[in-house]
Amino acid sequence: MAQSAPPSITFETGPDRYKHWKLAFDGPIATLSMDVQEDAGLLPDYRLKLNSYDLGVDIELADAIQRIRFEHPEVHAVIVTSLKERIFCAGANIMMLRGSSHNWKVNFCKFTNETRLAIEDASAHSGLTFLAALNGICAGGGYELALACDEIMLVDDGNSAVSLPEAPLLAVLPGTGGLTRVVDKRHVRRDLADFFSTLVEGVKGKRAVEWRLVDSVHPTSQFKDAVQKRARELAAKSDRPSSGPGITLKPLNPTVTDTTITYSAVSLTIHRDKRTADLTVHAPDGPQPDTPAAILQAGDQFWALRAFRELDDVLLRLRASEPEIGTIVIRTEGDIDAVLAVDRTLVAHQSHWLVREIIQFMKRTLKRVDLTARTFFAFIENGSAFGGSLFELALAADRSYMFHDDDETNVIALSPMNGRLRAEGASASLAGAPGSHARAEAGRLLPMSNGLTRLETRFLGEPDKPAALLAHDGPFNAAEAEEAGLVTFAPDEIDWDDEVRLAVEARAAFSPDAMTGLEANLRFAGPETMETKIFGRLTAWQNWIFQRPNAVGEKGALRVYGQQGRPEFDFKRT
Amino acid sequence: MAQSAPPSITFETGPDRYKHWKLAFDGPIATLSMDVQEDAGLLPDYRLKLNSYDLGVDIELADAIQRIRFEHPEVHAVIVTSLKERIFCAGANIMMLRGSSHNWKVNFCKFTNETRLAIEDASAHSGLTFLAALNGICAGGGYELALACDEIMLVDDGNSAVSLPEAPLLAVLPGTGGLTRVVDKRHVRRDLADFFSTLVEGVKGKRAVEWRLVDSVHPTSQFKDAVQKRARELAAKSDRPSSGPGITLKPLNPTVTDTTITYSAVSLTIHRDKRTADLTVHAPDGPQPDTPAAILQAGDQFWALRAFRELDDVLLRLRASEPEIGTIVIRTEGDIDAVLAVDRTLVAHQSHWLVREIIQFMKRTLKRVDLTARTFFAFIENGSAFGGSLFELALAADRSYMFHDDDETNVIALSPMNGRLRAEGASASLAGAPGSHARAEAGRLLPMSNGLTRLETRFLGEPDKPAALLAHDGPFNAAEAEEAGLVTFAPDEIDWDDEVRLAVEARAAFSPDAMTGLEANLRFAGPETMETKIFGRLTAWQNWIFQRPNAVGEKGALRVYGQQGRPEFDFKRT
Repeated sequence: MAQSAPPSITFETGPDRYKHWKLAFDGPIATLSMDVQEDAGLLPDYRLKLNSYDLGVDIELADAIQRIRFEHPEVHAVIVTSLKERIFCAGANIMMLRGSSHNWKVNFCKFTNETRLAIEDASAHSGLTFLAALNGICAGGGYELALACDEIMLVDDGNSAVSLPEAPLLAVLPGTGGLTRVVDKRHVRRDLADFFSTLVEGVKGKRAVEWRLVDSVHPTSQFKDAVQKRARELAAKSDRPSSGPGITLKPLNPTVTDTTITYSAVSLTIHRDKRTADLTVHAPDGPQPDTPAAILQAGDQFWALRAFRELDDVLLRLRASEPEIGTIVIRTEGDIDAVLAVDRTLVAHQSHWLVREIIQFMKRTLKRVDLTARTFFAFIENGSAFGGSLFELALAADRSYMFHDDDETNVIALSPMNGRLRAEGASASLAGAPGSHARAEAGRLLPMSNGLTRLETRFLGEPDKPAALLAHDGPFNAAEAEEAGLVTFAPDEIDWDDEVRLAVEARAAFSPDAMTGLEANLRFAGPETMETKIFGRLTAWQNWIFQRPNAVGEKGALRVYGQQGRPEFDFKRT
Repeated sequence: MAQSAPPSITFETGPDRYKHWKLAFDGPIATLSMDVQEDAGLLPDYRLKLNSYDLGVDIELADAIQRIRFEHPEVHAVIVTSLKERIFCAGANIMMLRGSSHNWKVNFCKFTNETRLAIEDASAHSGLTFLAALNGICAGGGYELALACDEIMLVDDGNSAVSLPEAPLLAVLPGTGGLTRVVDKRHVRRDLADFFSTLVEGVKGKRAVEWRLVDSVHPTSQFKDAVQKRARELAAKSDRPSSGPGITLKPLNPTVTDTTITYSAVSLTIHRDKRTADLTVHAPDGPQPDTPAAILQAGDQFWALRAFRELDDVLLRLRASEPEIGTIVIRTEGDIDAVLAVDRTLVAHQSHWLVREIIQFMKRTLKRVDLTARTFFAFIENGSAFGGSLFELALAADRSYMFHDDDETNVIALSPMNGRLRAEGASASLAGAPGSHARAEAGRLLPMSNGLTRLETRFLGEPDKPAALLAHDGPFNAAEAEEAGLVTFAPDEIDWDDEVRLAVEARAAFSPDAMTGLEANLRFAGPETMETKIFGRLTAWQNWIFQRPNAVGEKGALRVYGQQGRPEFDFKRT
């Protein structure tokens, strides 16, 4: 199989550079229209027919959602539709999937999943409502995009249907949460979901409504009006500001060399011979804005937003372009008190729309760490700044090593950002009823995909401990941090160099597949949510199927689709 | 890779035929001692050294647990230990895994998982406590067996350790729930779990206690006494009878031909050319016992126990010996009222120890259906007996087709067995805190692995509907059943033959891998439990890794282990 993937790829874009989407604004309504340019795929090997998509199309979608949140606070509802006649979206491009390596397919699905979850995150936390206006055929990944929206309206033209034809047509699963959302979000009955998911032609009209696959159907002549009317109704429920200004997300402009990526607050150094990288995040320097007005003024240069945007970008680059870099050592440096001061500002003003967006962005970036299939070790050394929101990086790491210095100046610290705003609803949130995104997170500032804070996940066996640790006065030195269970190991000067070197060397020598599976299972202890189901269960099955000869072998369905001949299967079931 | 697997295998055994386990009784304490006979593996290709195991060893373990429940009600606690000096158990046999096909490995893991969950099920529901007495090295699957027990005691001899060396040694994951139980049941901190799971030599002594890996350690000289003392304490908490008699589980003695397996109440006909099978369950005939005394008297011949034991056995045979039979059509026949009468007896006397065991057995068998990676379609035709507990088979099926007869004599019916005994605790149970097995099931008689009844799972979007349907007076004819959403489709005489034939043909033609993944995702909507995590997430990742060249390729770790040379990995991470 071709191992084709763009040699280097950037995840940064902007509306003036979009090739595949049109973003239009009309007061409180934004309309995001898919209009995929056939010959503008990331690679020249395939044509993006019928509004099918590749990673490049999804990068623009992710960017558009982000910009609506930050740049257009006056937008209260988003219509997701298509500019192609009688076609909403045909899903992920099959020729692209066929030509991709296993790694590329898995990472493509991971990013598109994160993008769809970002839509649901905006619904749950940003006062935005997403309305999928299906003006035509909506297949596979197209329907999965619709499923990520709050409501789905389908044109009733005798032809337009929703479908998940992946299993019957390609012998793979819908790769972006479709099966999970059908039963767990839309509560389609499981037997109907089974039937639907084996039906190439999908379901249309009234049956689609009766089966809960869409919310309503409308004759062609009334479709546009109905969509506009519903969008206004949904927009009226928002708690977003009635007018701007927003802030502009400007390009990050990192300096990129063969082995380094350097941003303002984040830097990455790659050691290809060792299959490791060093990732360092710098604490804020100098005075920081401490009012909403000052934060608005600072815009995308406010450290909390800038540093986490850079972190997000470097994670995506690592995933896409450095598959062999399996072990990442995370460090921080600078003034830990400056981090804690920024945290205090964020918590104090968290009800302001922009501060809310910044906190939510930090949350999503930290989830991106959890979901990155690379090992993370945090090294906490003298001069580090692992406080509050930056300490989440140590909590997200698979292990943390803290240098136990004799004079006890090396410290970590917690802040309210490591906790939750209100204690009520704790047990309700543990219920983690899949689909109830906002409920599951219940006031937690930087929750993981499982709905719990990283402290809560870490101390599942001691449920009172997170609150006790958050009440601790001041920082923790290495002995205190180890005793409190906040770090994994705290070697002293005699042991430090050997211990951390050997830990990294040993990790980098293990089978990367085994480490991926190990981490995917150990990182998300505790309750499950729709999000962990999608990444933990659905994705794992898809990864398995993506390798099976019945899908990708010489006669596999994904290989022979659209060509002469039919797939040939080994019919053994496991 | 070798595709070696025994051509035909039976899951029936008994203490007098055990080769690998010794079962001893001392009042309220049973001691189950592993003493694996090296040269008595299911296949001659490997030797079961160091108390390592293959499927045959685990079949005996499953049998022993079952017999303790039914045959020895006077047993209140079970010590699980080994008769080998300084070795508890070395885990699954690596040479066996190396020589096995993908299907065999996956099914081996599935059965061993079910066996460990059966231990936890007995703890949660049968008043039994399991005490793992680790008298020596306890590695991999050995530690996973210990993790399934309620408590773990480890000898402190300077050498004996617990370990999960699968990832570092073999480039696969612990295959029997180890990672999930470490963080979700024993609440080992995730960073310590990460370190532990990469440590070939494991963890011993005080550190094993501090990290929650075991409950206590004891010097060799005091170990046996401490185990006995603790077992007595645990036994004292049981609600099981203080004396017998139990009932004897006698051999099932099916008649087996090349294409049929026929029991007293269950029959299977295999159509190899179509890759399908017909599975029929017969309702009880004639008068049935309706008091605990009469049920004790009937023993294993009581229909509810007999029919479900036969069903359980046929499912296991299908899994192990008929990998290409991908689609199973389930039918029932006989007197539906007789089924409902048995259900009433079971519910009325469910607090009697034997009735409780029978209901729990029915529950586990139905879970075995849910967890079998074959498509199930229920065909509800004239003369069928889909009532109450047998209607669970239709609810467990991926789809159900009910013949819509003109004279409306074809009916289905619900019984209290489809519901729950008490309504309280509903929201608590939805919490599904992994590990809290008994709490998750909260009075449900035949819950699925997700802790909900099949009716609740079916109607996730209409939470009041299960109670309303259970309150329905009398049976449902086809029109009523379809309207109520209790069956998928109800074709009439004109459509029936073609519709069901085409449904089966289409299903049998799809990629079996895609169907396995589809079903694994659609069957378990709703909350997640430790059980669904183990089967849905951990198993899926393991299946993926079991196929990767880094494990099973020419230079994969599972292939080269114990031979000259070291594994060679493709270090690309996904």
